[in-house]
Amino acid sequence: MNIDGTPYRSIWVDETDRWSVRIIDQTRLPWAIDLVRLTTMEEVAHAIRAMLVRGAPLIGAAAAYGVALAMRADSSDANLRHAVDILGATRPTAINLRWALDRMAAKLRPLGNNARGAAAYAEAAAICDEDVATNRAIGRHGLQLIEPRARGGRRVNVLTHCNAGWIATVDYGTALAPIYTAHDAGLDVHVWVEETRPRNQGASLTAWELGKHGVKHTVIADNAGGHLMQRGDVDLVIVGTDRVTRTGDVANKIGTYLKALAARDNGVPFWVALPSSTIDWTISDGLSDIPIEERAASEVTTITGRALDGSIATVRIVPKDSPAANPAFDVTPARLVSGLITERGLCAANEVSLREMFKDHA
Amino acid sequence: MNIDGTPYRSIWVDETDRWSVRIIDQTRLPWAIDLVRLTTMEEVAHAIRAMLVRGAPLIGAAAAYGVALAMRADSSDANLRHAVDILGATRPTAINLRWALDRMAAKLRPLGNNARGAAAYAEAAAICDEDVATNRAIGRHGLQLIEPRARGGRRVNVLTHCNAGWIATVDYGTALAPIYTAHDAGLDVHVWVEETRPRNQGASLTAWELGKHGVKHTVIADNAGGHLMQRGDVDLVIVGTDRVTRTGDVANKIGTYLKALAARDNGVPFWVALPSSTIDWTISDGLSDIPIEERAASEVTTITGRALDGSIATVRIVPKDSPAANPAFDVTPARLVSGLITERGLCAANEVSLREMFKDHA
Repeated sequence: MNIDGTPYRSIWVDETDRWSVRIIDQTRLPWAIDLVRLTTMEEVAHAIRAMLVRGAPLIGAAAAYGVALAMRADSSDANLRHAVDILGATRPTAINLRWALDRMAAKLRPLGNNARGAAAYAEAAAICDEDVATNRAIGRHGLQLIEPRARGGRRVNVLTHCNAGWIATVDYGTALAPIYTAHDAGLDVHVWVEETRPRNQGASLTAWELGKHGVKHTVIADNAGGHLMQRGDVDLVIVGTDRVTRTGDVANKIGTYLKALAARDNGVPFWVALPSSTIDWTISDGLSDIPIEERAASEVTTITGRALDGSIATVRIVPKDSPAANPAFDVTPARLVSGLITERGLCAANEVSLREMFKDHA
Repeated sequence: MNIDGTPYRSIWVDETDRWSVRIIDQTRLPWAIDLVRLTTMEEVAHAIRAMLVRGAPLIGAAAAYGVALAMRADSSDANLRHAVDILGATRPTAINLRWALDRMAAKLRPLGNNARGAAAYAEAAAICDEDVATNRAIGRHGLQLIEPRARGGRRVNVLTHCNAGWIATVDYGTALAPIYTAHDAGLDVHVWVEETRPRNQGASLTAWELGKHGVKHTVIADNAGGHLMQRGDVDLVIVGTDRVTRTGDVANKIGTYLKALAARDNGVPFWVALPSSTIDWTISDGLSDIPIEERAASEVTTITGRALDGSIATVRIVPKDSPAANPAFDVTPARLVSGLITERGLCAANEVSLREMFKDHA
């Protein structure tokens, strides 16, 4: 998508040296657009852990390039195993990470050492290109949910949580793909952007990318989402996901479950957008089987923004002796999910429907 | 309650001049304890609007002293009407404000002008003293909910939203009163403190007052409350309220409704603590009849905390061109409320039970 008129992906191979990997440091958005250069697998692992890159699909793409950088340095079996181990341990919840590493390893393991470097870059590039095509398809399928509600020029209010936009993927986004598609088709779509404490990916990333693309939006505290549904101001909820069980349970950014409950209580459709790489076919009970990452308390006790003098400043917002807990994801049971928006079409959130739609995968 | 060993109320008449009104500026907590002196009705109105004092019971007490200051300056009928009008328009949602003003006006209107000043101070003091007694009774009744769960030394985890502690009242608190009572009785009670965006009354006020009293607590993002209930880490939810309909619908700080939904979904009891002055006997449908205050967008787009250098700093956390909306309260339908903790005892959240318990009021 465009940043001030220039098209970007969220990750790419440097145009000059043709081997290092470029990302946008998402911890600096929306205040600065820092294009960071990653030159080693360890730097990629750090970028994932520290959330310079985040979003389940982008984490997978970044891990793929991490393997490519590892193979460029040392294409031995041992180093391939090492890279997969290190990158695979960076974050626990998003399954796309495991999916991308499995795909890279399956491609590279049979090859001779000399062939692995080029093959790794080619496979990482393929993962990225496929992600973009997948997200465009999610956008087209998701448009079916928005278009009927927009007839007669009516405004459609979509609520989203966290960031599942183009910078959470390689390009175009998952939850935001139907919104971009509707906007580009001239429909009047407005997005309620939940700020998404504690890391504020909604306020700092979703608001930023919607604003850059000219999509109408309003930032709200996460607490306000239920009230907006009660008063009839939300037509549709669309969120992304970090892992979906084969039965349709959905892990996503902490707080998603609360909005699914409110949507159910108010008759508002609650949809989840995902590439099929986010489905974990090995598990059936999201509440017991999906590991929930616990992140640092400092993400709750401090917050970073732009001070009046323009500088980027971090302030503490919790008394210094008060401890904090910070689970980063929650699980929305399939019973609360109206349906899934996948690259193959709309799908009910249950095992029969998922197996039917993804016969070849499952 | 104590601040560092010294007992305080949240509002009192200055000990030296015996007429001006002292409050703790709650916009400065937890970083500074500023004891502000209010000398006019207009200063009280500003303190309520700008939330130097907040919390439904304390707003009522402050408004009562606002009337007393007005009567000291000019005890005419016209000025009494003027004070009631100005103070009554400061904030729309909490009904205690209206209750306190009605009580003051009913007391003062029949009196001669010369008698109004002293009577107004006496009535405001009575409102404060009754609030403290009421909250102690709420604490005793609420203990019934905690004590059985604490048998055998078991830890009881209570989740609360916003601040309904001693600084939301004159002293002792509503939602926190049972917690203080349990703590002081030696029970092992631990509080999940929701930060309560956008104004962070949980992180900045509830965490602060629990910490000062030595009550175990952990601050969480508002988004985390549902997940904690899913994993069985919440025994009980207790919140305060700004207005309860005669049918038991509960207006409280924005986001409360989401926790009531999660409590219902996970079989966690959801209780609301209130003095009977918070009941609005004139309305029956909380969703349509309770006015919801819309506050400034800047409460969402900026946040204030303590910088590394110790200074108090405000930072912007939303891109500068993104608008924000800020509804300050939501309504939890009575069907989601396990019960009400009042000064007369525990009560089901419905009209029959409320009329039975408050026969003389209703």
